[in-house]
Amino acid sequence: MKSQRAELVADTAIDLLADRGMRGLTHRAVDEAAGLPPGSTSNLARTRSALLELTLARLTQLESTAFAAAPAPPGADMVEALAEMTAQALWTQLTVGRRQTIARYELAFEANRRPELRTIYDRAGERFRDLAVAVLSAAGSSDPVRHGRQFVAFGEGVMFDALIGAGAEPALDDLRLGIGEFLRGMLGEGAS
Amino acid sequence: MKSQRAELVADTAIDLLADRGMRGLTHRAVDEAAGLPPGSTSNLARTRSALLELTLARLTQLESTAFAAAPAPPGADMVEALAEMTAQALWTQLTVGRRQTIARYELAFEANRRPELRTIYDRAGERFRDLAVAVLSAAGSSDPVRHGRQFVAFGEGVMFDALIGAGAEPALDDLRLGIGEFLRGMLGEGAS
Repeated sequence: MKSQRAELVADTAIDLLADRGMRGLTHRAVDEAAGLPPGSTSNLARTRSALLELTLARLTQLESTAFAAAPAPPGADMVEALAEMTAQALWTQLTVGRRQTIARYELAFEANRRPELRTIYDRAGERFRDLAVAVLSAAGSSDPVRHGRQFVAFGEGVMFDALIGAGAEPALDDLRLGIGEFLRGMLGEGAS
Repeated sequence: MKSQRAELVADTAIDLLADRGMRGLTHRAVDEAAGLPPGSTSNLARTRSALLELTLARLTQLESTAFAAAPAPPGADMVEALAEMTAQALWTQLTVGRRQTIARYELAFEANRRPELRTIYDRAGERFRDLAVAVLSAAGSSDPVRHGRQFVAFGEGVMFDALIGAGAEPALDDLRLGIGEFLRGMLGEGAS
């Protein structure tokens, strides 16, 4: 983010999206909720598109941090390490990052009706997907592009089902087990 | 559905949700898009909640049909048959049922802000989840409740990623392969 004020505006927009949905996010609502003088949000992001783009940029930054911060357990083999890191990152997005994840889903929907937001959303998604492809390739996948996509889809499904769908929030242990099975299913039993 | 008119109203509401989102769904818009006399939708579903509930009931009916209609290939083992049927059903929801799936996601979001819709959405979801648990139990799962949830989450993730997220629509062959790997990962290599 370019400034502390831009971060504050974006973080407030994330909370509004999560709590009130797309309809609840307006320039004025951000000013009020952030305790800023009227017009502050408009000065930073004049149009609605600019505000949505600023919010999405902040979400991408926060989500990347969550995935980068997940610790690799010492001494684990590659599949175990990957399962542990992914479980931790998903867990973060389901708990402390819950509102961020919901806000991102609101923006994903809106992107289907706003081509300029779609472009930015898809570019951010592409970075996650490329990372998944690279990691699965390193883990010995025989079909890393398909497997990378599948891995991202599974992660999205776990989060979507728990936060928006009818599913209960999975326990961290269940995430670990499930992701391990998923990886071994793609990589074969002998995967290391 | 209780009547042909209720079906027409619900199907029109599904299209409006998919094309215009939650804001585009009003009683008047349904009357207009369905070519019904003004007031017809209100007569059938007086409140906004009643209209959303009618729409969700229709979606549940259509989605159940898609899953029940998927053919089991003759001579396949249980994992192969399950992978084939699930791939076909997901494929249907991604192609001819595309707008139904998007409309269901719109309702899932709205359910987070409407407790009465949440109850109905979750009850419908529970039925799919119970079915997944029963099928995985029959296929020899050692942990059918967790595996059933995981299986539903994976299916949701594949659909969400392709229709709302940044992912491209997977090919039917890729779905088949991916679901097979997913099932073997949960059930073990020797699963039959």
